[in-house]
Amino acid sequence: MAVYTDITETELRDFLEPYDIGELLSYKGIAEGVENSNFLVHTSAGSYILTLYEKRVDRNDLPFFLGLMEHLAQNGLTCPLPVHRRDGIVLGTLAGRPAAVISFLEGMWPRKPTPMHCREVGKAAAVLHVSGRGFQRNRANALSVGAWRALWDQSASRADEVEAGLGAEIQTDLDHLEGNWPQGLPSGVIHADLFPDNVFFLGEELSGVIDFYFACNDLFAYDIAICLNAWCFERDGAFNVTKGMALLDGYQSVRPLSGAEADALPLLAHGAALRFFLTRLYDWLTVPDGAMVVKKDPREYLRYLRFHRKIGSAGEYGLRMGEAG
Amino acid sequence: MAVYTDITETELRDFLEPYDIGELLSYKGIAEGVENSNFLVHTSAGSYILTLYEKRVDRNDLPFFLGLMEHLAQNGLTCPLPVHRRDGIVLGTLAGRPAAVISFLEGMWPRKPTPMHCREVGKAAAVLHVSGRGFQRNRANALSVGAWRALWDQSASRADEVEAGLGAEIQTDLDHLEGNWPQGLPSGVIHADLFPDNVFFLGEELSGVIDFYFACNDLFAYDIAICLNAWCFERDGAFNVTKGMALLDGYQSVRPLSGAEADALPLLAHGAALRFFLTRLYDWLTVPDGAMVVKKDPREYLRYLRFHRKIGSAGEYGLRMGEAG
Repeated sequence: MAVYTDITETELRDFLEPYDIGELLSYKGIAEGVENSNFLVHTSAGSYILTLYEKRVDRNDLPFFLGLMEHLAQNGLTCPLPVHRRDGIVLGTLAGRPAAVISFLEGMWPRKPTPMHCREVGKAAAVLHVSGRGFQRNRANALSVGAWRALWDQSASRADEVEAGLGAEIQTDLDHLEGNWPQGLPSGVIHADLFPDNVFFLGEELSGVIDFYFACNDLFAYDIAICLNAWCFERDGAFNVTKGMALLDGYQSVRPLSGAEADALPLLAHGAALRFFLTRLYDWLTVPDGAMVVKKDPREYLRYLRFHRKIGSAGEYGLRMGEAG
Repeated sequence: MAVYTDITETELRDFLEPYDIGELLSYKGIAEGVENSNFLVHTSAGSYILTLYEKRVDRNDLPFFLGLMEHLAQNGLTCPLPVHRRDGIVLGTLAGRPAAVISFLEGMWPRKPTPMHCREVGKAAAVLHVSGRGFQRNRANALSVGAWRALWDQSASRADEVEAGLGAEIQTDLDHLEGNWPQGLPSGVIHADLFPDNVFFLGEELSGVIDFYFACNDLFAYDIAICLNAWCFERDGAFNVTKGMALLDGYQSVRPLSGAEADALPLLAHGAALRFFLTRLYDWLTVPDGAMVVKKDPREYLRYLRFHRKIGSAGEYGLRMGEAG
């Protein structure tokens, strides 16, 4: 949750003047998004999200994120659409921060995902991968395999505070993943943070994919690997293969995986677990208590990466390859 | 800001089932209200506020607060209306907490109040006082003069940490206020927390008075005294008599003050400043950094109470008594 910046009603009214979205009626800071300040804005024309981009987001990345949302929304993904001002601009300045107005999507993220939800998110991930193909901009993944060692170096000396022997264990994983990371798999735009709180549902229907602020160019199968981690483990740490199957079936109903992608999936899932483990470990050890950042226990992802380490083939996640595989 | 309790979409859907407010479309935790968890809920019928009452609110007071909002809304005050379930009930249980659905009011609270805002809030305070007359329930003011000594005793020994000599100064004020607090002035239901963030405007029109969770039975003029403190000081600590005049004129356009109320106003304003000083001082000294409670600098109200101490008559606030006085 986060509202870092308060804004006055007069500066907001001035900010909205160049938009064709009616009269401002109300705005509430909402407890959503970890990196930015978000407001739910009501106008006489409807509901909108106003986002103020705070320090953790690189201003230079904003045209990629906003352009991508627009591109994906126009190419079949249900996601928020940045609103253009009358002069065409989508990115303004409010309270000294870059700020954008985007369409508001009704729906609720599933606190307890079911196989139905997993199937739909798998499908949406594939739609995103396919829809992103014509997008002109590029953004490297700042949190992919090449970035992990530097991240690890900032926590390594204190890792054994979390669990004895953890330092050596993670070091071995990192060496293994760096040495075996796949090359040449199908790639393009990925979401890279497709967790349940970024996917809205209305009943059984997926009503919106949000929060594209980690989106980047990387392996499609790595995005699937992130989803397997984020959607298919139970609270007790057990992998639910029914959910894995639903997610992978959903994905393949739109974009079938190649044999090479299927082969790489256990290693990619292992890597995805390490990526979230490393950022959580860093926050856990570094961010002071009471700061605005919500710290999540890194041990959740430690369990996941230990699970993936033992996986022999993607079939253990529930992957079923059709004749196309 | 505060969202203390997260709720799942399934428990919310179940909670809303007995209400006639359409289909649940979305809910967002909002950064509003200090004591409770608040959600802005969209349904197919419109927008609502869902409040979960957290520990700091006494469950036994909730029928007073909710009944009062309903009574006032039905008697001319623009304020939220608790929504009844089909079985007539307004107070349910959600995530183990008492919870209520109330109507959502569009509007924005003025970050920089003008005399126009002050006039409207004065008027609204008087409408509240008049409208409250027929309300059947009673609630003593837990933060009036009789409560201040106990509050002070919890901070007195550390007051000089805020400023040297402060302990003796406040002790003198407290003795004075306790010894001279007025008796027999007109009383009834007061809001007791009518700060700018509890009053919404749409353009020049007051569109809602919210947050009745300090409402109680006390002197009407004490409520005005709270408003003078909350609305009429500039950021530099100077009292703006134009705003004071607007507020008091607005009030008297609905309910003229008696001579005794006018005479008591400086002492009541002094007391109101002490009341907010004491609660802020307590939080300042006691609440750990990083807790959910937003700590406000008690020195703001220290300046106000030093100002009121020197006031000779209510005319210095801008009070103009007509022939009715």
